[in-house]
Amino acid sequence: MRVGLGQFNAIVGDLAGNAERMRGIYKQAIGAGVNLLVFPELAVCGYPPEDLLLKRHFLEENRSTVKKLAGDCAETTVIVGFADRYRAEAYNCAAVLEGGKIRDVYRKSRLPNYGVFDEQRYFEPGTEPLVIRSEGIGIAVTICMDIWDSKWLGRFLKGSGEIDMVLNISASPFHLGKIERRRAMIGECAREFDSPVCYCNLAGGQDELVFDGRSMFADASGEIVATAKAFEEDLLIADIGVEGDSVQIEPVGETASQPAGVLDEVYRALLLGTRDYVRKNGFEKVLLGLSGGIDSSVVAAIATASLGAENVVGITMPSEFNAPETISDAGRLAKSLGIEFLTVPIGPILERFNDSLMEVDGWDSKGIAYENLQARIRGTILMSLSNQLGALVLTTGNKSEIAVGYTTLYGDTAGGFAVITDVFKTMVYGLAEYINEINAREVIPRDVINRAPSAELRPDQKDSDSLPDYDLLDEILKGYVEEDKSAQELIEAGLPKEVVRRVIRMVDRNEYKRRQSPPGVKITPKAFGRDRRLPITNRYNPWAGG
Amino acid sequence: MRVGLGQFNAIVGDLAGNAERMRGIYKQAIGAGVNLLVFPELAVCGYPPEDLLLKRHFLEENRSTVKKLAGDCAETTVIVGFADRYRAEAYNCAAVLEGGKIRDVYRKSRLPNYGVFDEQRYFEPGTEPLVIRSEGIGIAVTICMDIWDSKWLGRFLKGSGEIDMVLNISASPFHLGKIERRRAMIGECAREFDSPVCYCNLAGGQDELVFDGRSMFADASGEIVATAKAFEEDLLIADIGVEGDSVQIEPVGETASQPAGVLDEVYRALLLGTRDYVRKNGFEKVLLGLSGGIDSSVVAAIATASLGAENVVGITMPSEFNAPETISDAGRLAKSLGIEFLTVPIGPILERFNDSLMEVDGWDSKGIAYENLQARIRGTILMSLSNQLGALVLTTGNKSEIAVGYTTLYGDTAGGFAVITDVFKTMVYGLAEYINEINAREVIPRDVINRAPSAELRPDQKDSDSLPDYDLLDEILKGYVEEDKSAQELIEAGLPKEVVRRVIRMVDRNEYKRRQSPPGVKITPKAFGRDRRLPITNRYNPWAGG
Repeated sequence: MRVGLGQFNAIVGDLAGNAERMRGIYKQAIGAGVNLLVFPELAVCGYPPEDLLLKRHFLEENRSTVKKLAGDCAETTVIVGFADRYRAEAYNCAAVLEGGKIRDVYRKSRLPNYGVFDEQRYFEPGTEPLVIRSEGIGIAVTICMDIWDSKWLGRFLKGSGEIDMVLNISASPFHLGKIERRRAMIGECAREFDSPVCYCNLAGGQDELVFDGRSMFADASGEIVATAKAFEEDLLIADIGVEGDSVQIEPVGETASQPAGVLDEVYRALLLGTRDYVRKNGFEKVLLGLSGGIDSSVVAAIATASLGAENVVGITMPSEFNAPETISDAGRLAKSLGIEFLTVPIGPILERFNDSLMEVDGWDSKGIAYENLQARIRGTILMSLSNQLGALVLTTGNKSEIAVGYTTLYGDTAGGFAVITDVFKTMVYGLAEYINEINAREVIPRDVINRAPSAELRPDQKDSDSLPDYDLLDEILKGYVEEDKSAQELIEAGLPKEVVRRVIRMVDRNEYKRRQSPPGVKITPKAFGRDRRLPITNRYNPWAGG
Repeated sequence: MRVGLGQFNAIVGDLAGNAERMRGIYKQAIGAGVNLLVFPELAVCGYPPEDLLLKRHFLEENRSTVKKLAGDCAETTVIVGFADRYRAEAYNCAAVLEGGKIRDVYRKSRLPNYGVFDEQRYFEPGTEPLVIRSEGIGIAVTICMDIWDSKWLGRFLKGSGEIDMVLNISASPFHLGKIERRRAMIGECAREFDSPVCYCNLAGGQDELVFDGRSMFADASGEIVATAKAFEEDLLIADIGVEGDSVQIEPVGETASQPAGVLDEVYRALLLGTRDYVRKNGFEKVLLGLSGGIDSSVVAAIATASLGAENVVGITMPSEFNAPETISDAGRLAKSLGIEFLTVPIGPILERFNDSLMEVDGWDSKGIAYENLQARIRGTILMSLSNQLGALVLTTGNKSEIAVGYTTLYGDTAGGFAVITDVFKTMVYGLAEYINEINAREVIPRDVINRAPSAELRPDQKDSDSLPDYDLLDEILKGYVEEDKSAQELIEAGLPKEVVRRVIRMVDRNEYKRRQSPPGVKITPKAFGRDRRLPITNRYNPWAGG
């Protein structure tokens, strides 16, 4: 039997479009002699459809789309993910299409409800396993988390007939380290059942999530024998046959090259996440403020690689606090990337604002409010041009500064998509070097990488006036934000007590800013946003008990 | 046995403060002869603590706080809600404190995971019922949703011993119509067990939620015999005794007066939600833009009633597009409320912005971008004064305009708390009339109520140029947003097809603005925010299938 894993880029809500895309892949698969074609979890409606699942008509349209797809793809067996209504409840399902009809429906049993996942908000867990026989091979049909605990799966499938192969359809979002977990879990599942595993994942960006594809075939020993492309669509094919007591699996065709390392993975995730957010929301062009600093330089480079230089506009908005070098570096970067470059100085506007605000008792043209005002003028200029030109604004804040609130709400946080919102500052430097390396030239000027970071909102300002060194800050943030460690644990691990306390305090106090910030690509095990849900009103004092 | 329901205003995360508050209520209860004192669900840590529950040390501090509370409240039996860790999992628990110790712990079995609730993200469901005997009375201890299905509860409690009384600790947030559902459910539970029900709810605001108190005693026939105060703290007491085969319940003291109707409920919910958000986040003062329109007038009146006139600053920011009457009405309103009133004209700033933007090809000083620019200048002025004066900005948008995106992101949406974000425009008028009625004078000038609504961002602009009449708009929104009806269902119910399609399109396209808007008080069955979670990237076309 020839199995094809149709890893594709579904769009949430676009039922007709996703079906059309699957029909195209079906034709390609037929041409390649595939007998069993597999599409990812919720391929019909995209993942995650969130509260669309509460609309009864949405579920009904899922089913009618699958029915139509069955009719259009009658020459092979097709497995496809969709959302279904059954006895007044919603289920996350895999349909088995054969001979123009829906032959079987499997309802997902293990529903993730942690991190970015809310499946128990929508779905009832299925209770019936499904093992189908196709070309003499017994195939256990499973969905995503069903196989994460292979011991449980063994009990669940007990008595369902002989299993020669485990098939899993997934919508597994990317974060660093995830691919290793998937490989280990798939290998363990293969060994548990002494059978090959066919794993089909989604590819594409959806709001803050990026699905990285990398569908896989494992043989019965648990070895991964083929992996599909990372961060793009692919059709991965293998032949599977029973020989005596064992099931053999043989990949067909070349295997795609895989990401070269952490920075390559992150870079490609950011490219795909940015492109899909912009395009799927109907935008062609983006614009962003270029400060001459490293964050906006890296975001501009990613936007250019993602969308094409012709679709990126860089805007520099200098004030008297910007050094001549940073202003000229912004221009050098734009030239290096080949993007349109505009200059809108903010001095005269700032002056006019200041004159008006001086009428109010207590206004201080040297304090934090005055610094924030400059950022908000820039945010307003970007949004005005966005409205006028129909281009989406990309924000340029990194995870370190967003964590501690070293940002101005409605200022540098103003925009539609926050490309590096989940990238720590220390990794932003890594990305800059990586971008220069893969382009074999100084795309991002060396001076931009070497200069000490500054918000340039007052004379001679440096980030290090307000924040610990980024190496230390990022280490504390990783422990506190991503690993939910207590202050005490961090201090016991050797981090300096006063800095830990100050950083935790900053993180906790700035939840309100994050709540009003745009989404961006999740690349770490715990991003801000749907992945980390903290109350704004929160008096928890993490070291009171310690 | 004398039972006291200690309905109080817990602060999320403030474990020590909540315990201190409970010790105060304990002393009051001892003075009143109470034998069994009951506190609400998660009283120790506040509700909902969200991802604080993922911190192991947070759960450990919950338990150590309960232990200390047991020692401090040794003279009566106390039932108190807290979050606990047990065999490596987290549970939503009720502790039974007696003689200085934790005598028993009940773990909540039914975990809500819909609407604003995410309990399955954090908690495992308990599987063991708990019936305690105190003063000869068998008491079933339950938590919130455990009693919503009394048939299920009957099966769950079967074999746990004789039940004379059902005790329920809750954290049940307010929305319109909720009190009737609670009364019906409590009555049904009483009849199912032929026993009195003691229901203790939280009182207070937490981000977008308001807990409305109204703890209750029901007798064995299901009749509500006493209800605690609405929207404030209270200690509700009743005597319970077994007489032959039946259990009698007798309220002690006067019963609080209850809200007079829908507008009274909404008004009090908004007052409490606003006060608690402002105060619990450490602010004394608020400021808001006063346009002379009805939305900002109602919000100013609510802020004044909630926080005191001395803590509210109104700012008018006129442009050439504001009519002299609206400008003077803003001043009249401020005078009527007795609040500080500032004027910061935006004309000169707008002109300076426009001059700078004219340098960019394609800038149009008559289009939507120019209208939005005015709103963003106002947002920037408010935020600048907020930063300088340490006052929280209240936004003034209503649910109707937020639904269809008739707002400017970072303009009128800029601020910390959105007081009427869940109040439809038609109800804003009702609130204005209600405020004038309870004050027995024109707090909100009649002209403000009577004038046709306008954003005043271009000459002679009216809301009705862009939007359907608010009566029709609100009816469509109620069906589409709150009831998840399809376009087809709305049209079949007699609503005009083209308007329905246009409104649905506007709602769907503006999810990105809502995602970056501040939280506000939930008063309807479905508010925007945590209650309604839709993807931003969303190509679902609700009438494609119809």
